[in-house]
Amino acid sequence: MSTIAFNSKLSLAQQHSNSLLCVGLDPDLEKLPVHLARDAGGVYQFCEQIIEHTHPYVCGYKFNSAFFEILGARGMEVLADLRNAVPGELITIYDVKRGDIGNTARHYAAAAFETLAMDAVTVNAYMGYDAVEPFTRDSSKGAFILCYTSNPGSADFQQLMLEDGRQIFLEIARKAREWNDFDNIGLVVGATKADALAAIREVAPDLPILAPGVGAQGGELDAVLQSGRARSGDRIDLVIPISRAILYSGQGEDFAVAAGKQAELYQQTINRALIND
Amino acid sequence: MSTIAFNSKLSLAQQHSNSLLCVGLDPDLEKLPVHLARDAGGVYQFCEQIIEHTHPYVCGYKFNSAFFEILGARGMEVLADLRNAVPGELITIYDVKRGDIGNTARHYAAAAFETLAMDAVTVNAYMGYDAVEPFTRDSSKGAFILCYTSNPGSADFQQLMLEDGRQIFLEIARKAREWNDFDNIGLVVGATKADALAAIREVAPDLPILAPGVGAQGGELDAVLQSGRARSGDRIDLVIPISRAILYSGQGEDFAVAAGKQAELYQQTINRALIND
Repeated sequence: MSTIAFNSKLSLAQQHSNSLLCVGLDPDLEKLPVHLARDAGGVYQFCEQIIEHTHPYVCGYKFNSAFFEILGARGMEVLADLRNAVPGELITIYDVKRGDIGNTARHYAAAAFETLAMDAVTVNAYMGYDAVEPFTRDSSKGAFILCYTSNPGSADFQQLMLEDGRQIFLEIARKAREWNDFDNIGLVVGATKADALAAIREVAPDLPILAPGVGAQGGELDAVLQSGRARSGDRIDLVIPISRAILYSGQGEDFAVAAGKQAELYQQTINRALIND
Repeated sequence: MSTIAFNSKLSLAQQHSNSLLCVGLDPDLEKLPVHLARDAGGVYQFCEQIIEHTHPYVCGYKFNSAFFEILGARGMEVLADLRNAVPGELITIYDVKRGDIGNTARHYAAAAFETLAMDAVTVNAYMGYDAVEPFTRDSSKGAFILCYTSNPGSADFQQLMLEDGRQIFLEIARKAREWNDFDNIGLVVGATKADALAAIREVAPDLPILAPGVGAQGGELDAVLQSGRARSGDRIDLVIPISRAILYSGQGEDFAVAAGKQAELYQQTINRALIND
């Protein structure tokens, strides 16, 4: 087991790959290239090819559990096989928004970190510290805590104002930083929310932020990089997951070549924006 | 597909079985009787026997996903097989605290309701209405929304006071009721919190409440039944999941007979408390 803390491991993977880009693997059967079977086997072939052609341009991969779970036990087999297809120097994030406590949370952590050997998990902290701690006790493994998202429903709870005048998502960011004893906690913040990103950076200047919403969802790259990067130090502490805009760049038999080109383009665009920042 | 709304289906299952008890299946390898293998096969044998001997005394089963996911793809196969071992007139709840949006949430809903054919799912509503709606659009399927739990960490967010003087968990209960257009939304509320249960019943008088915490966790049955039952009508709208206190009643080869006796005892105790209420 690696003894380097997850957040440092992430930073090293980003330096090594010269990339903040992380490809989100959420393989939708209906969107697979027509020559592939619409089943678990097709999903494996699709993702395996995507990994082969995109890995030089990324710091890691984010596996969206829903798209594997829908395929039943065979889907979970494919997920495990694909995780093993990721080169060892890259980061693997299991995007499953886990949120439970006690013995259940410990079993979920073991399922993610041991059974599937992922490096990090996305976590929902509504149940509080008990729901987070089982995912952070091993410093080499990471937990990205759901903080602020860009969907309409984020107004229902995330944005509500507490009696102390702070919004709930900022209280989550504050507690996440307080809990970051082992340098292995991060946050999930929608990339389209530049104001929120800036406010979150005030209370959590040094936590890695996983910022979905760039690409097919139309997030502004410049704004994300400006508001979301760490406030000081060498680490950028920002991961840009892009899924559909890369996965489905091509629909022919050379779909993965097209995806690789698209990933390289995103890598370059991100790096250019970083330099100009 | 059944056209009866989930909450009515739950009530019918409770009337038919004369039981509010639901057995929680969270099979811990370390706690299996010694004669069973400590693997997915052992878990299948264990749970299949538990279902066979407890089903006359329960309204349904709650499957805790963590304990199957830790076993990898084989665990998910076992989960699917066990779900099919539950008699058709009983309710199956997939306890996986789902919380995601859009296409991802739709895939999770299909994984739960189609791939696994569960009747209901536990849902985390932090991301708002978009995270709940995919689980409720089919009225015959149910969503139990995480509201208030009894762990220490519930103080971190659930209990925080909003600027309007209401605690977050009450706002969740209020919205859950507002969203209950198809009579298929319920709440998860810890059984040990009688005051909170009573407050939640004020804002959600008619949503089914799944109340974990009775049994090994020591919840007070009388208080739960008094504070948690529906305020009016024929439906009790209360589900009492009990896990360890039933699953591990016996450690010998007759473990399932012991579990059946224990389930019957809980059924009777609950029914007696209901009459005295």
